[in-house]
Amino acid sequence: MGLGKYKVDGSKKVKLSDFNTDSKRDDVVKEDIKLKQADNIKKIALLQEKLYAEGKEGLIIVLQAMDAAGKDGAVKHVMSGINPQGIDVVSFKQPNSEELAHDFLWRINRRLPERGKIGLFNRSYYEDVLVVKVHELNKSYKMADRITKLDSKDFFKKRYRHIRNYEEYLFDNSYRIVKIFLNVSKSEQKKRFLERLENPDKNWKFSSSDLSERKLWKDYQDVYEQAINETATEDCPWYVLPADDKWYTRYLVSAIILKALEDIDPSFPELPDSEKAKLTEYHESLLKDGK
Amino acid sequence: MGLGKYKVDGSKKVKLSDFNTDSKRDDVVKEDIKLKQADNIKKIALLQEKLYAEGKEGLIIVLQAMDAAGKDGAVKHVMSGINPQGIDVVSFKQPNSEELAHDFLWRINRRLPERGKIGLFNRSYYEDVLVVKVHELNKSYKMADRITKLDSKDFFKKRYRHIRNYEEYLFDNSYRIVKIFLNVSKSEQKKRFLERLENPDKNWKFSSSDLSERKLWKDYQDVYEQAINETATEDCPWYVLPADDKWYTRYLVSAIILKALEDIDPSFPELPDSEKAKLTEYHESLLKDGK
Repeated sequence: MGLGKYKVDGSKKVKLSDFNTDSKRDDVVKEDIKLKQADNIKKIALLQEKLYAEGKEGLIIVLQAMDAAGKDGAVKHVMSGINPQGIDVVSFKQPNSEELAHDFLWRINRRLPERGKIGLFNRSYYEDVLVVKVHELNKSYKMADRITKLDSKDFFKKRYRHIRNYEEYLFDNSYRIVKIFLNVSKSEQKKRFLERLENPDKNWKFSSSDLSERKLWKDYQDVYEQAINETATEDCPWYVLPADDKWYTRYLVSAIILKALEDIDPSFPELPDSEKAKLTEYHESLLKDGK
Repeated sequence: MGLGKYKVDGSKKVKLSDFNTDSKRDDVVKEDIKLKQADNIKKIALLQEKLYAEGKEGLIIVLQAMDAAGKDGAVKHVMSGINPQGIDVVSFKQPNSEELAHDFLWRINRRLPERGKIGLFNRSYYEDVLVVKVHELNKSYKMADRITKLDSKDFFKKRYRHIRNYEEYLFDNSYRIVKIFLNVSKSEQKKRFLERLENPDKNWKFSSSDLSERKLWKDYQDVYEQAINETATEDCPWYVLPADDKWYTRYLVSAIILKALEDIDPSFPELPDSEKAKLTEYHESLLKDGK
């Protein structure tokens, strides 16, 4: 039930197919896990308050997954107990024309949290080496020939490197980054799509492109596996989490965020002695106030 | 009079003291140079129009210098002939509290031009390895200990690398970057400061900090020399321009921008034949219009 088995830190290449997509291989009981998750959320809420008060480090959580893997649900269930003043959730959709006219990290940079905050990216710049790679969208970019005429392999090799450099840059600017891939099975995705089609309250979640993208399942698994291997580092690791059992996924997400905050180890700022002495003065002065 | 002698591309270390600060060593006549500059500006204006129409590459010009070296004058005299719709001039002052709460490139990223435009940075992220280094401002950053407790040498070594990576990233995202250092002499700076103090119309340009920073002249020359050597590359070169003769500096700046645009070599987009055929139809239809 430890996180270690789900962590990818770049020390060796991993295969997605080696990771379990459900809770069966872990010796866990749903009721216990739910209690532990509630406990984690309480601890996260307190650490987040300290992180905000201290304002020295920022935490960036990247959430990536195939459709219907449970990203929105994880955000909702893990983050709902936290003061929204300290957390920015950003959902990155298909880039618009203004975003496409800039470098691919431009829209990300604009939404980076300030230090002291948690930034949760529901999808992210990783889409630029996932959906872009599967559909070879790079071939139709409006860019100089020296870029559009690059072999796709070389183009994405550069992109992986730029992402590694970017995350290292953020780490050196007092940010922590954890990247989470919700690893859902193809059969569980089918089940969830069917539910979206059969339950009128869930119809809005279904998109016609869901089925065409599902046909590219193998391609997506390949680009995810490659992106994870190319960008996992000790400082900015990936976690490949089983996503077929929502209650387990959400617990694991809470455990990862808690661990990241514990690593940061924030504390409420302590005033210097000179300031503390002043507080005593203010306190006495206020007590003497006639009103 | 060629640009080559002023270009630094990282192929070998340079010393600032080896560069001339005035026009004397170049065989140039002021009147000729002024005519050439006017000609350059016309050519820049036409190429900028093509750059904008094509929208495939962006041009970033970084302008750095000691106080009173003539940055504002260069911007005014070189850029005034160009359609302002195609150029964004951004002056970066001391970072405000919101900017300081983010990574040091955050405020830069927000002002990056879209492709098809020229972005001129009057001061830039280079201040983060110049004034920050001279005054060791990094020691008082509100960041994690793993950063503030770094030895300054290691801290700036990382920053140089992050800047190199950042510029390479922009280059790979279809931007060109040229970096210009206006190399003014200490005696010419004195002359210009005196003018600001003696001429009431120029009083507003003088700041009390100008004199205290001038006392750190040698320190600034050192950090400039180091920053230029650490970040000059073939794709993103520096130019160290003599700045004691304004007419010559402005000409050289215009020549650098013209060369960068000629390297990009933009052209008006050509319509595919199918679209051209439609234009003939539209044309005929409009001619037949009774009104």
